[in-house]
Amino acid sequence: MRPSGRSFNEMRAVSLERGVARHAEGSCLVKFGDTHVLCTATWDETTPPWLRGQGRGWVTAEYGMLPRSTHQRMKREAKAGQSGRSQEIQRLIGRSLRAVVDLKALGERQILIDCDVLQADGGTRTAAVTGAWVALEDCCRWAVRDGVIAANPVVDSVSAVSCGIVNGAPALDLDYAEDSTAQTDANFVITGRGGLVEIQATAEGAPFSDEQFAALLSLAKEGCAGLAARQKAAFE
Amino acid sequence: MRPSGRSFNEMRAVSLERGVARHAEGSCLVKFGDTHVLCTATWDETTPPWLRGQGRGWVTAEYGMLPRSTHQRMKREAKAGQSGRSQEIQRLIGRSLRAVVDLKALGERQILIDCDVLQADGGTRTAAVTGAWVALEDCCRWAVRDGVIAANPVVDSVSAVSCGIVNGAPALDLDYAEDSTAQTDANFVITGRGGLVEIQATAEGAPFSDEQFAALLSLAKEGCAGLAARQKAAFE
Amino acid sequence: MRPSGRSFNEMRAVSLERGVARHAEGSCLVKFGDTHVLCTATWDETTPPWLRGQGRGWVTAEYGMLPRSTHQRMKREAKAGQSGRSQEIQRLIGRSLRAVVDLKALGERQILIDCDVLQADGGTRTAAVTGAWVALEDCCRWAVRDGVIAANPVVDSVSAVSCGIVNGAPALDLDYAEDSTAQTDANFVITGRGGLVEIQATAEGAPFSDEQFAALLSLAKEGCAGLAARQKAAFE
Amino acid sequence: MRPSGRSFNEMRAVSLERGVARHAEGSCLVKFGDTHVLCTATWDETTPPWLRGQGRGWVTAEYGMLPRSTHQRMKREAKAGQSGRSQEIQRLIGRSLRAVVDLKALGERQILIDCDVLQADGGTRTAAVTGAWVALEDCCRWAVRDGVIAANPVVDSVSAVSCGIVNGAPALDLDYAEDSTAQTDANFVITGRGGLVEIQATAEGAPFSDEQFAALLSLAKEGCAGLAARQKAAFE
Amino acid sequence: MRPSGRSFNEMRAVSLERGVARHAEGSCLVKFGDTHVLCTATWDETTPPWLRGQGRGWVTAEYGMLPRSTHQRMKREAKAGQSGRSQEIQRLIGRSLRAVVDLKALGERQILIDCDVLQADGGTRTAAVTGAWVALEDCCRWAVRDGVIAANPVVDSVSAVSCGIVNGAPALDLDYAEDSTAQTDANFVITGRGGLVEIQATAEGAPFSDEQFAALLSLAKEGCAGLAARQKAAFE
Amino acid sequence: MRPSGRSFNEMRAVSLERGVARHAEGSCLVKFGDTHVLCTATWDETTPPWLRGQGRGWVTAEYGMLPRSTHQRMKREAKAGQSGRSQEIQRLIGRSLRAVVDLKALGERQILIDCDVLQADGGTRTAAVTGAWVALEDCCRWAVRDGVIAANPVVDSVSAVSCGIVNGAPALDLDYAEDSTAQTDANFVITGRGGLVEIQATAEGAPFSDEQFAALLSLAKEGCAGLAARQKAAFE
Repeated sequence: MRPSGRSFNEMRAVSLERGVARHAEGSCLVKFGDTHVLCTATWDETTPPWLRGQGRGWVTAEYGMLPRSTHQRMKREAKAGQSGRSQEIQRLIGRSLRAVVDLKALGERQILIDCDVLQADGGTRTAAVTGAWVALEDCCRWAVRDGVIAANPVVDSVSAVSCGIVNGAPALDLDYAEDSTAQTDANFVITGRGGLVEIQATAEGAPFSDEQFAALLSLAKEGCAGLAARQKAAFE
Repeated sequence: MRPSGRSFNEMRAVSLERGVARHAEGSCLVKFGDTHVLCTATWDETTPPWLRGQGRGWVTAEYGMLPRSTHQRMKREAKAGQSGRSQEIQRLIGRSLRAVVDLKALGERQILIDCDVLQADGGTRTAAVTGAWVALEDCCRWAVRDGVIAANPVVDSVSAVSCGIVNGAPALDLDYAEDSTAQTDANFVITGRGGLVEIQATAEGAPFSDEQFAALLSLAKEGCAGLAARQKAAFE
Repeated sequence: MRPSGRSFNEMRAVSLERGVARHAEGSCLVKFGDTHVLCTATWDETTPPWLRGQGRGWVTAEYGMLPRSTHQRMKREAKAGQSGRSQEIQRLIGRSLRAVVDLKALGERQILIDCDVLQADGGTRTAAVTGAWVALEDCCRWAVRDGVIAANPVVDSVSAVSCGIVNGAPALDLDYAEDSTAQTDANFVITGRGGLVEIQATAEGAPFSDEQFAALLSLAKEGCAGLAARQKAAFE
Repeated sequence: MRPSGRSFNEMRAVSLERGVARHAEGSCLVKFGDTHVLCTATWDETTPPWLRGQGRGWVTAEYGMLPRSTHQRMKREAKAGQSGRSQEIQRLIGRSLRAVVDLKALGERQILIDCDVLQADGGTRTAAVTGAWVALEDCCRWAVRDGVIAANPVVDSVSAVSCGIVNGAPALDLDYAEDSTAQTDANFVITGRGGLVEIQATAEGAPFSDEQFAALLSLAKEGCAGLAARQKAAFE
Repeated sequence: MRPSGRSFNEMRAVSLERGVARHAEGSCLVKFGDTHVLCTATWDETTPPWLRGQGRGWVTAEYGMLPRSTHQRMKREAKAGQSGRSQEIQRLIGRSLRAVVDLKALGERQILIDCDVLQADGGTRTAAVTGAWVALEDCCRWAVRDGVIAANPVVDSVSAVSCGIVNGAPALDLDYAEDSTAQTDANFVITGRGGLVEIQATAEGAPFSDEQFAALLSLAKEGCAGLAARQKAAFE
Repeated sequence: MRPSGRSFNEMRAVSLERGVARHAEGSCLVKFGDTHVLCTATWDETTPPWLRGQGRGWVTAEYGMLPRSTHQRMKREAKAGQSGRSQEIQRLIGRSLRAVVDLKALGERQILIDCDVLQADGGTRTAAVTGAWVALEDCCRWAVRDGVIAANPVVDSVSAVSCGIVNGAPALDLDYAEDSTAQTDANFVITGRGGLVEIQATAEGAPFSDEQFAALLSLAKEGCAGLAARQKAAFE
């Protein structure tokens, strides 16, 4: 039995709310249970200097946590600088989104995603990837609607979910209570069509076996299929 | 006629929502129209080193803006460092709150307020002071309820409002459109009982006169009286 | 009775010495009693990037304190970074000077004022504003004299003074001993013609009343009128 | 055919040289072909503050690249600060080593591993993990020999290897030429007994399939088995 | 003929004014012609952590330049961070002073010297060493007078002067015009009794010969003898 | 008798190995006994902004130490920032090399030398200068060979050695044991033709005399003559 009473393959309540940021070209407030992340997308008619003149665009992301999004207050990143963990997560978000964008079709433009955690209860990076895609799609639809670009460069959806070995058994979408005691912790990024984009699996104590990993991968596919359906629904 | 259609002494729609942050000891999501600030209060059983052994507590604040809270995306403060403006505002919030807390009664403890702007449309610092007080009071009521402290050390409420000379006429609670064209811009921090805590008035172009300043002060008193009533209502 | 023996509306000995910095286009060593600030003005034939092509110039200021300008040695800002207080003060100085300069007449140029506190005894920001104006005027007169610009873009003088409620009574131009015990502390920036440019009033303990504020404003007008006369005399 | 002429499951020439740093308690110069990493281990009789009093030790790592270890010179990290990539890699190295150390047996002590890339040709992080383990074991054997600790707290070996889909086919131990054109890039950390410690797989362009991932995992097991044998040999 | 009309072995006008900083335990405004440096000494009853418990004290120095002390305004070090040059100079000042202080006699205390260049015209480091010694001696005499320490731990005076090969000929105490065109530039730190404390000689273009170096050393001894006499006179 | 058994004018075993860095245009691993420094040279077809359009090139250097190159592990400079000592040394290396390069002949290009200390046992800066010259010459010969430049702009060799007064007697090429107890410590940079480029001599305790300094200079000339011969041999 999981602390939350969920079954092993049950996700937390998921919500994807668009249009939450008045100034941004795209936005989404994503909730995986008590984990809440505000995602905004900014359309930028320039590319980073190192990409200029190559006829391609770029999608990048930044991630942060509000100081009291966590059980114990964290030091404000504006004072402490970005943590290594934040940098690692924002690199993951950017890579995940670029896997489903036709950068040539985007042209020499950049879309910048900001993911800010308002409240954390485990799985902030997977919620962020999932919400970031909605903000990205929201932004690209705006660009098409406003005539800024002829066609939407987003070619598929992408979402992410965490899985882990908790009390010796595989479980989907860990909350903080599970995450902090898991023996193995894994994050999967999977496209709407089921392609694998990123796998990160870490033994927190003892190493894990092939069979355990296969069980986690199977759970993740199920979870991401559900998330893809919700992402689709958010635009209906 | 103001751009928003408001009369010269009319505030924007104000909302003060408590209990919005699951992990914080006190919290308030404050809205002055399209300006939204998330305020949390953290109870800390220690004081800053420079205050130790003096039998007094401390209340301090930190302020930040999400990168896409603004019309144009701002550089993330985690990367750029805290701006001088942010530091100036958080010092103001801290001073304002300390004016209505009995620091001896608080004892050798600290309350740390975080004010993070989710969306900006002018007046973020005045909304922040107003919401920060609700988070502070929320936190101190929790401390009394939980037996952490015998009596609430908050001795009065405090709120803030901006006023300005816009198109030559005094106006209450400027939004961004007005703020960016005001000839004079002023912020007032006033207690529930009507005492003045802070006045900041700045000529953006031509200097202002005594009469103009008196008109702004009068508007501010009216505005803060209304905010004090709403703060009271938030605890009923 | 004030600690210094001064009457409630009496300023400290004021001195404004021009031409103290051999390399600068304008300079002034300002003394308000034991508070000594070296102000220099640098003429720059370029403007900040965000202002280019708008046909206007800019006046800005930087402020710092020597490590042993204070009773207790402060950490050197070159090592500790600029404090929030220093940033707040230099923004005030810049705003104050821009209020009396015709930026269109200045053209696409910038004047940069440096205010460095050699010795501090309260009121460093008000002394800095007052001396900075002399350095600015000195610099603009040099520019006219050298044919760099056709006419002086400075349209009025500006000075600043602090006032406070000390031992329950209003007092003009607080020194450190008074400043550190004042119940209310206020700074006023006023032009030579008597226009208000900036008001900053802060309750250090209990809130202050309208009547108290009016008394401080009245003292400040008297003080700044005297400073304006001294500024004028510095160019005779 | 691979650019280097290697077969798909062939590693580069691997060398693990101990005792290369006169001052360090343990050291290893690891070479995977033209990728050379100097690994040192420092025995520290204290633990980080957050771990004190818990009866456990810690193993941590730092990673850096010399500026001209790469084709194009990189900015020196002493001037630019540690990159997000460096932080990500050093966190991986630390986690990998802790998976094979009995931290309770280590006691309240810390072992700090430094991995500095002298020359890079792809796979610096996997070479670093592999060499870091040799430096760690070297250090712990020294500690036992010198009577600093009664028994060696290292319970297994650990090594790492990269695999990827290059020109559509799986390949083991990518060099820079392959790494920069791989469609999928993966890193595996595996213990001497064959347990999985960390999996990181990333689609660089199109997503990858389950079958492709299985092929990479299989190659990695083969590669790490060979590395474990070489690690063992380094102590004979 | 030198640009200033001085003969090859003639120093600029030197002035050493004590008691210029009201809050500091010792101070000296040193002028070598148009080079003006404000030196203060701070008595500190603690030592740096790495020296504790060894029964010895420490003398250290910090150096900075005001932004407009130079012909072209320099970036403020509070914003740009301390330059490598500033760090190099302050290390030199500290070493020079420690050579004439009995650190055991000082006991577990520290004297911190601040040297801030108000105006620069070449030779700021040599003027700083010379003035710093006066501030140090001033501070130690205060400590004896006030009973803080039984006996003055300063065992000799120390001063510094620059010499160079200018237009092919040796010259003493270079000003900026000479310094920027010198073929060889050297700084000498010499005690009151004539002992050598520090020599720094640098070829700016072609290497220099033994004979040229001997000529510079000879000039420096003459110059420092004169400075030692002035230092002595400053305490009469 | 010296701790190492060397005679007073005997250098440690010196080795200068070229071609040690596959990616760099020039490189040298220099060893002075147990002091090992990896020097690389990067050819850059641009010059620093402040030099553009003047028809001259530039040679500059950066210096760093690996964290465990020393007896006690040092904090990684990527985390701590460059120390003042590192900056001072890299400025010395750059100056020394520029003294033997015809910067006009180099044209508007830059050569950047990186000196990274792999292992330290005293004299890292002198080893670095000596090895840096080999890397520089190696790089310029490559440039001539590859037709990047018509003629080698290096006009002479340059090397460096330390000398000191140890146990009252002059000694050449101090190792760490001697360096940390020397009464006087000096570094000399001398060209292949015997010209003096830089002298840095520092009294660590008591001042030193003219005679002592002359003895050190004499030893240094002997030492650098030997180093020049080895530098020449490295290209045969």
